[in-house]
Amino acid sequence: MKVIPLILMGCGGVGRQLLQHIVSCRSLHAKQGVHLRVVGVSDSKSLIIASDVKQKELDDNILAEVCRVKSDGSSLSKLTSLGESQVFSNSESRTKVLDIASILGKSTGLALVDCSASSETIGVLKEGVNLGCCVVLANKKPLTSTMEDYDKFVSYPRRIRHESTVGAGLPVISSINRIISSGDPIHRIVGSISGTLGYVMSEVEDGKPLSQVVKSAKSLGYTEPDPRDDLSGMDVARKALILARLLGKCIDLGSIKIESLYPEEMGPNKMSVEEFLNGGVVRLDNNIEERVKKASLNGNVLRYVCVIEGARCNVGIQELPKNSALGRLRGSDNVLEIYSRCYSQQPLVIQGAGAGNDTTAAGVLADILDIQDLFP
Amino acid sequence: MKVIPLILMGCGGVGRQLLQHIVSCRSLHAKQGVHLRVVGVSDSKSLIIASDVKQKELDDNILAEVCRVKSDGSSLSKLTSLGESQVFSNSESRTKVLDIASILGKSTGLALVDCSASSETIGVLKEGVNLGCCVVLANKKPLTSTMEDYDKFVSYPRRIRHESTVGAGLPVISSINRIISSGDPIHRIVGSISGTLGYVMSEVEDGKPLSQVVKSAKSLGYTEPDPRDDLSGMDVARKALILARLLGKCIDLGSIKIESLYPEEMGPNKMSVEEFLNGGVVRLDNNIEERVKKASLNGNVLRYVCVIEGARCNVGIQELPKNSALGRLRGSDNVLEIYSRCYSQQPLVIQGAGAGNDTTAAGVLADILDIQDLFP
Repeated sequence: MKVIPLILMGCGGVGRQLLQHIVSCRSLHAKQGVHLRVVGVSDSKSLIIASDVKQKELDDNILAEVCRVKSDGSSLSKLTSLGESQVFSNSESRTKVLDIASILGKSTGLALVDCSASSETIGVLKEGVNLGCCVVLANKKPLTSTMEDYDKFVSYPRRIRHESTVGAGLPVISSINRIISSGDPIHRIVGSISGTLGYVMSEVEDGKPLSQVVKSAKSLGYTEPDPRDDLSGMDVARKALILARLLGKCIDLGSIKIESLYPEEMGPNKMSVEEFLNGGVVRLDNNIEERVKKASLNGNVLRYVCVIEGARCNVGIQELPKNSALGRLRGSDNVLEIYSRCYSQQPLVIQGAGAGNDTTAAGVLADILDIQDLFP
Repeated sequence: MKVIPLILMGCGGVGRQLLQHIVSCRSLHAKQGVHLRVVGVSDSKSLIIASDVKQKELDDNILAEVCRVKSDGSSLSKLTSLGESQVFSNSESRTKVLDIASILGKSTGLALVDCSASSETIGVLKEGVNLGCCVVLANKKPLTSTMEDYDKFVSYPRRIRHESTVGAGLPVISSINRIISSGDPIHRIVGSISGTLGYVMSEVEDGKPLSQVVKSAKSLGYTEPDPRDDLSGMDVARKALILARLLGKCIDLGSIKIESLYPEEMGPNKMSVEEFLNGGVVRLDNNIEERVKKASLNGNVLRYVCVIEGARCNVGIQELPKNSALGRLRGSDNVLEIYSRCYSQQPLVIQGAGAGNDTTAAGVLADILDIQDLFP
């Protein structure tokens, strides 16, 4: 039996779902000859670890208890030591994780699995790399920090996986990596990689006013609590940066041209969410409506996409042929079109749900299984 | 530097292209810390191997010479020993390959890469598995033989890769494997996985007579020399069987319901290719035209697809919504729709060129790189 010891950082939506997947896949993975040994779980406040990380694990009862506490919206610090485990506060947890990495990283191997949305994990992850750990990320922050950080994470390319940083569990990163390693150079990627903005753009295409669409999207739970977090394009830009760097481009977030769907004077530091929704966004309706109509006259539609081509990495609204994979997109699915030597006339297209805890956690789990050959 | 020793079986179109890719990717792979050491190449008549398989390899000059001989349509037997290599006849080659597998399989590792289209490799591949070899297939035959053979090949699931058996280099098998290992059960796959039949069905949708479309497809080089090899559905059935078995179904080719686009009385043992093209296929025009019209009345189109769902594995013409990924398909691209828990309402869609030596060989090369962690 191949054993993969791991520490999970971040057990909010995605991380909690991952723990549930791990537990429910026990017999499937046993059949495949693999056992995922969870030796630690942390949130922003606490870390719970197995009492003897060389031998023991947080058993499925403890993992269930972790899930229960987190689904109540509580912190891991509410857990008192459960069975053969110990709970540490945030101030101690970094040191503890690195202790475990020193013990396991080069002997049995250790996967550091980051399902948080925080920049605070970057330091410990980098030290983990030095200590021989594998890194599996749903968190985009470590890969969208400086190029120096990025280079550190990919310095052992087989030891990092990050499928769920773009398009949730959609096989985007793994497919791009396959294409690259087969020597088929990718010269262009165009993608609608925000479910929220995909929904918004296909609704305004149908003639609905932007303001109404944004309000519906919010009430459907498609947006962040402040919809401007989606409309700013920053989330798309982070994903675009990850894709661009994967293609070998040495760029930073600052080099990406980002089109925000709202002007600066409607920014979060200028008006509240309510003001934006009730008075701000309606002022953007006409402009979008006109752009939609103009595109339509050319047989095109508007999509909020990332375009990575040559030295260019842009994020914003583009006019695209109605009759392309991107143009036909409806609703909140993600779509990526990848152009390479092998896919030159017609792109390789990958399409499907690109958000949701279940899908995102499934992508992380597939990544963990995918590094099993690196473990003794 | 990670070294992957390999023997290539079959160096016709795909195999020859693979050798060219391997040579042209030398510096890319060196950057990734990997070296592909080709210790042997065989075709149906001969085997050429490095003189000392433990240390040496067929160098890039020899590989270039192999490519030159094969592109002339000649056999490897035309090669006399080149540099530090030896040529063996077919009668000796099986024993020689297994000798090498015994020497390298469990020590340095050895990949047996099958780019032939022959059933004759099955025996040596199976023995190779016993000797610790990895198996990489573009050849569908080993996986569409008996369940006993299949079980042998997947007995070490990490040691087999076969992306290019379905949809050429499209990331179909790797994506399905990811979904399965993440515990997300796939309950339905529908795919147009024959470029030829994809082209045929989208052309008849436009109102062209089947007979004319088949003749155009043949003259465009889209079909086998005898177009009935495509129209019979057997190629699609083999790919469907591979997908069905990947989903855990214990079925044989005989259990698949296959719709042939021509009746038995027009089969290859009843009439010649010329008779079929000039007198036979025209008699099928009306029936197809009526079916296209009938589908159109329901807002649907006809596609030649595989459907794998529950215990069912069918291959044939289906009426599908015009507004689905499959319904929108034009030309010779392949499309797969995968439905699972995570992709339940909208499927995961993978679309792109699903044929061609370049793409197929790229898929094989990505598979070889993907098993690198199994080598010491």
